[in-house]
Amino acid sequence: MSDFDLKKYLEAQRKKVETALDGLLPHTTDPSAPVMEAMRYSIMAGGKRIRPILMLAGAEAVGEGDDALLPAACALECLHTYSLIHDDLPAMDNDDLRRGRPTCHKVYGEAIAILAGDGLLNYSFELLSSEEIRKSIDPELLMEAISIFSRASGVFGMVGGQTADIIYEGKPIDAETLAFIHRHKTGALLAVSVEMGAVLGGADEVQRNALKEYGQALGLTFQIVDDILDIVGDESVIGKPVGSDTRNQKATYPALFGLEAARSKADELLEQALKALEGFDHRADPLRAIARYVVERNR
Amino acid sequence: MSDFDLKKYLEAQRKKVETALDGLLPHTTDPSAPVMEAMRYSIMAGGKRIRPILMLAGAEAVGEGDDALLPAACALECLHTYSLIHDDLPAMDNDDLRRGRPTCHKVYGEAIAILAGDGLLNYSFELLSSEEIRKSIDPELLMEAISIFSRASGVFGMVGGQTADIIYEGKPIDAETLAFIHRHKTGALLAVSVEMGAVLGGADEVQRNALKEYGQALGLTFQIVDDILDIVGDESVIGKPVGSDTRNQKATYPALFGLEAARSKADELLEQALKALEGFDHRADPLRAIARYVVERNR
Repeated sequence: MSDFDLKKYLEAQRKKVETALDGLLPHTTDPSAPVMEAMRYSIMAGGKRIRPILMLAGAEAVGEGDDALLPAACALECLHTYSLIHDDLPAMDNDDLRRGRPTCHKVYGEAIAILAGDGLLNYSFELLSSEEIRKSIDPELLMEAISIFSRASGVFGMVGGQTADIIYEGKPIDAETLAFIHRHKTGALLAVSVEMGAVLGGADEVQRNALKEYGQALGLTFQIVDDILDIVGDESVIGKPVGSDTRNQKATYPALFGLEAARSKADELLEQALKALEGFDHRADPLRAIARYVVERNR
Repeated sequence: MSDFDLKKYLEAQRKKVETALDGLLPHTTDPSAPVMEAMRYSIMAGGKRIRPILMLAGAEAVGEGDDALLPAACALECLHTYSLIHDDLPAMDNDDLRRGRPTCHKVYGEAIAILAGDGLLNYSFELLSSEEIRKSIDPELLMEAISIFSRASGVFGMVGGQTADIIYEGKPIDAETLAFIHRHKTGALLAVSVEMGAVLGGADEVQRNALKEYGQALGLTFQIVDDILDIVGDESVIGKPVGSDTRNQKATYPALFGLEAARSKADELLEQALKALEGFDHRADPLRAIARYVVERNR
């Protein structure tokens, strides 16, 4: 174990990402101003910024931490926020609160919320192809990053996972379908965050595969722990009403296998994530610490 | 005037694009199948495929027509279809019919329709960064194409235009705001279709600017003529109820300036579009003929 201070690291990285987001988000006095305001409202509502932080940590593990990658890190947060806005819509999960504040459609109306989500999804690609990032990153690497990013966010990733989640709401579900939903709805983006960091940080093939494996294990862990916290958690910590998954009859790992099996699975995935990092030096310590932290949230 | 046969050209290109779309659209038997079905339902509903055709014609004007560009052409159609699906939603324009068929949310429900739109928006970037297109197009050119494409579709383009359209629905509107809506909501994507063709076809700076100017003039013409047809058109030709803009109190060029002024403006823009093509040889004939055709639709 190194004496790496995760709390300090997460706080410093979170601030770095929020400063970058604030500077990169679009502004206008045009007639389209309301959509930009709504985008900013949702994205600046706080949150751990775990996806951008994972991306930066992935790049750090194979090279140097590099501020040139901040637009790509912010792209991940734009994408994540778009998915929250659309998931909260009345036609989807119909949530009124998100991180303790009224959801986007509650403040700006449904039409603007749909457009704010569209705008953020789209903006993630604007950031990934912005002049700023193209100045310092090789176009071949950027194309590879856009390719895996778009795959993880689309019908073969998040959109596909959310579709299955909606389709199976309130219906009996088997382990395979649950794994599909987990892997696609939240796992894909968390995994690709780390992999994008590897790609943009200049990883070789072996490093990239190892970091991808770490990311996939972490993504699944994250979802299982989230589901556990929905049952046993503290409302002020998780930022949404405890038990909302149960009330919404959402398929979750503990609902299907029980709390103890869910905890064992999380531990097993943690081992797998740490094992994938074995070939890396101290520069992967942030990734190691993040994986431990995710699992320890439910202790 | 050349003896270029536009009708034959459009029909051949439309078929080429539809075959490519059919092959490139995602398929699955996974739990996410319904969203892919909804995407396919909306995109295969027909339409002129004018944006992909413009892109291919833009590339043709500076080089050779090249099937390697088909994934990029299909990306434009995915993006266009996403915007139709989301615009038709109850929270937006609340339309039940599109091209004579029930709209996506009428068939698949609102949640899946939102996700199908998200999926198609996202899929356009999957196509632009697909292995297939990366095999034959320089990554620097692809990055440039993604950059202008994402800008045209996001808050500085279509999303911004649709926002203004929603905000000003039923409110008095000035010429400047109307121009903003036209330029962003439909103009931006039509213009960028031609410009992307130029970029991916390997245009030099002068050619690219000329084709961009052509595209911008064409985009605005297209919208003005569409608005004229909404007043004087034939329902079976335009595919939606005549007068729906008036009933929805949509801001339109003829509503603001009158039918005659709108027609003059369209003629003026046609001249501008053709003038921009003066430096091009016969390979720009498709673009010339398309511009004339767009204006003549309202005669």
